[in-house]
Amino acid sequence: MTPDEFRTAGHEMIDRIADYLDGVGDRPVQPDVAPGDIRAALPEHPPTSPETFDQVMADVERVIVPGITNWQHPGWFAYFPANVSYPSILGELLSAGLGVQGMSWVTSPACTEVETLMLDWMQELLGLPAAFRSTSESGGGVIQGSASESTLVAILSARFRATGGAVNTDGDTTKLVAYSTDQSHSSIEKGLRIAGIGTDRLRTVPHDEHFAMRPNALREMIDADLAAGFVPFFVNANHGSTSSMAFDPSAQLGSICRERGIWFHIDGAMAGIAALAPEFRWVNDGIDLADSYCTNPHKWMGVNFDCTTYWTTDRASLLGALSILPEYLRSEAAESGAVIDYRDWQIPLGRRFRALKLWFTIRMDGVDSFQERIRRDVALTQDLANKVADDDRFDVVAPHPLNLLCLALHDGDEATDALIERANASGTALFTRTVLDGRSVLRVSIGSHTTRAAHVDAAWRLLQGDV
Amino acid sequence: MTPDEFRTAGHEMIDRIADYLDGVGDRPVQPDVAPGDIRAALPEHPPTSPETFDQVMADVERVIVPGITNWQHPGWFAYFPANVSYPSILGELLSAGLGVQGMSWVTSPACTEVETLMLDWMQELLGLPAAFRSTSESGGGVIQGSASESTLVAILSARFRATGGAVNTDGDTTKLVAYSTDQSHSSIEKGLRIAGIGTDRLRTVPHDEHFAMRPNALREMIDADLAAGFVPFFVNANHGSTSSMAFDPSAQLGSICRERGIWFHIDGAMAGIAALAPEFRWVNDGIDLADSYCTNPHKWMGVNFDCTTYWTTDRASLLGALSILPEYLRSEAAESGAVIDYRDWQIPLGRRFRALKLWFTIRMDGVDSFQERIRRDVALTQDLANKVADDDRFDVVAPHPLNLLCLALHDGDEATDALIERANASGTALFTRTVLDGRSVLRVSIGSHTTRAAHVDAAWRLLQGDV
Repeated sequence: MTPDEFRTAGHEMIDRIADYLDGVGDRPVQPDVAPGDIRAALPEHPPTSPETFDQVMADVERVIVPGITNWQHPGWFAYFPANVSYPSILGELLSAGLGVQGMSWVTSPACTEVETLMLDWMQELLGLPAAFRSTSESGGGVIQGSASESTLVAILSARFRATGGAVNTDGDTTKLVAYSTDQSHSSIEKGLRIAGIGTDRLRTVPHDEHFAMRPNALREMIDADLAAGFVPFFVNANHGSTSSMAFDPSAQLGSICRERGIWFHIDGAMAGIAALAPEFRWVNDGIDLADSYCTNPHKWMGVNFDCTTYWTTDRASLLGALSILPEYLRSEAAESGAVIDYRDWQIPLGRRFRALKLWFTIRMDGVDSFQERIRRDVALTQDLANKVADDDRFDVVAPHPLNLLCLALHDGDEATDALIERANASGTALFTRTVLDGRSVLRVSIGSHTTRAAHVDAAWRLLQGDV
Repeated sequence: MTPDEFRTAGHEMIDRIADYLDGVGDRPVQPDVAPGDIRAALPEHPPTSPETFDQVMADVERVIVPGITNWQHPGWFAYFPANVSYPSILGELLSAGLGVQGMSWVTSPACTEVETLMLDWMQELLGLPAAFRSTSESGGGVIQGSASESTLVAILSARFRATGGAVNTDGDTTKLVAYSTDQSHSSIEKGLRIAGIGTDRLRTVPHDEHFAMRPNALREMIDADLAAGFVPFFVNANHGSTSSMAFDPSAQLGSICRERGIWFHIDGAMAGIAALAPEFRWVNDGIDLADSYCTNPHKWMGVNFDCTTYWTTDRASLLGALSILPEYLRSEAAESGAVIDYRDWQIPLGRRFRALKLWFTIRMDGVDSFQERIRRDVALTQDLANKVADDDRFDVVAPHPLNLLCLALHDGDEATDALIERANASGTALFTRTVLDGRSVLRVSIGSHTTRAAHVDAAWRLLQGDV
């Protein structure tokens, strides 16, 4: 492909993307495909000679676009919002075009320094503790690929600190115990498992009627473990759980952890972005007691995946857990301590220039637009909750302080499951099922940047009609 | 940003990228910046109102582009090649624009099925064992974000198999022992550490004069560990080490592992792509004995980062290690066994549609172009090796079967280190230092897609003149 061909093809790709996003609401949310359909529609073997851009784009139209689930659809009420903003696409494109590696400061200084600045900007925009800033004595932030990786990094930092670093040589994790509720994201169990903390030593702390962790139960479980000779090392609190948008009482939990020297991680992946609007800054309550925190600009904020912001107040434990320096990665800049080498802040070595899409989005969309979106989505959710309350066939089964509403039918799980299936078959909206305290639940997650009142109303009529 | 503004800005961004890549050779390889310069050139606080695309792009020109290390430069002889091809940029752009999540089949079927097909295409193009195919009884492939993540996934699969899955509940890793040479990538030690295998149980197997693992030494170390009651569980072999392009003798090593039921992983991150050219398919020797293998299309092949292809012949151990299924991720398609849910094949949960850039690159660049690049780079490396051999101030200190040449000066480490520093200060070429058996070494990695004979000649004159 010549540079001129790239220019022509690139312009066309931009237009195709704009067309796709413009028209996404006219497509069914879910594709009408069965397992194997996509593969069967493509050649089984690679081509033996080059094909043209037009040939590839013909297959994009014929197979790819009709074969994806449309996460940008205004009828998207499933999983979580994963918004793609225009500035964010441009930032990702620039990152792909420059093709630099940001594993060390020296491998591309701007990649590191813009990232550090973006984490400090986000600390400021979200109203997070100053101890998270890169300019603080012992803290700092980094872009991770996902909240799962943030969780794992937090666990590894905690594991390092609890063992005084001995785990790096002896690998002995057999006394370490972690704590969370059953509302926690699967990445908590996955991260612990990866780090050598088996499910035998993951304590499920009871929750209250709002699906929030009970502090007294946590305290008792920790003290029982201490008495039994275990080493409580990690507590995860949810600030907006994926399943039910539950908020754990971090002010109390954090104090319990502080008293006992336990790493306190707060998972704000789903909802931490709400703090961009001052009236929702309560989502940060207790965060001043956290050793680490993450939230996802790649969800509600409109920065396209992957962009998780992770902060810690204990940089030394993070570096202790993850830093390894082979000869071919040494640099004067790093050895002088004047720079950050982000490879030591994450699981992989290599890293893209992901800060660009955050920078583009903050600058071009602007904070007002994020606040407007958050306020709109929360208002839509509260309106819907009121309507649901007026229909006595439905129950609202969890608090709904932000943009997730958890519903169930009075008639029981089979009826709720059948409702989800029928509603999703409509093609006009998509919902995800979860289970809360044994009960089947239909989740309505409102946060796609194209969703307006009319879409939520239509979704509600759909659910009412399908009962 | 309106759709029309996006179209205009997107076209301009495409043109800017084309301009950048066209002119990258006229820039210094390394930026002239000191730690903190980039940050100081940008506003310390986020803007309070939206800015225009032109304002952001002005800062891109003023701060970002002059602040990056130019990995696409024809004078790029540092680290490893990280080529960005035009089709690959277009594939990444499409992925950003569609904004789908591929964590499960059902969350975007095309994302999963194109990826599976690409792994099978790559198996075919590289001449890898059929046991790696997704259509095989027990194997399959996946795109990982990096070779580091591949290594970690291999270690976790091995850990699961060696403990019969018990590690998932008891987290006991204290008997497990791993083996590799000191030429291995830092991600081996990092992955082991993450998985709870401390450095006390990472055996450094001696290497021969070609930096290749000694099979007899491996056998003896394993048997000594077995006799001492340890559980040897993981052997890593390098097919082209980062530091010196060393190849371990996998046919022999693999047999030793097979006899003892030890997971045998082959790390082909640097050079496995060479197998695209039939005459270099020897890089696969012994791979039929591997339980897992990875190589990086995001290095020599021109697919932009991140795109690591990872295969295993033992899917069950991989899923045993990483599968966790919360209610909100359940789907009929997955439970029927008819589909792959790639979230269970990797560390994170979320995943981008990374297969698009591989698909675009294979189709539009074509296999012939990859072969041509590989042949050209290997020939340039051999030519340079001959020239170096004629200059008795220099030693070639490692075998150079492909595109990496390791040099040192007769006059000793200080002279070599000083040469690297002077040559890099020129701005016309960039080399990385490593240490081989205690000796300072200048690495010449030839693989940037813009590098031609004239650039290698100029680099050689630079080195000769700077001695």
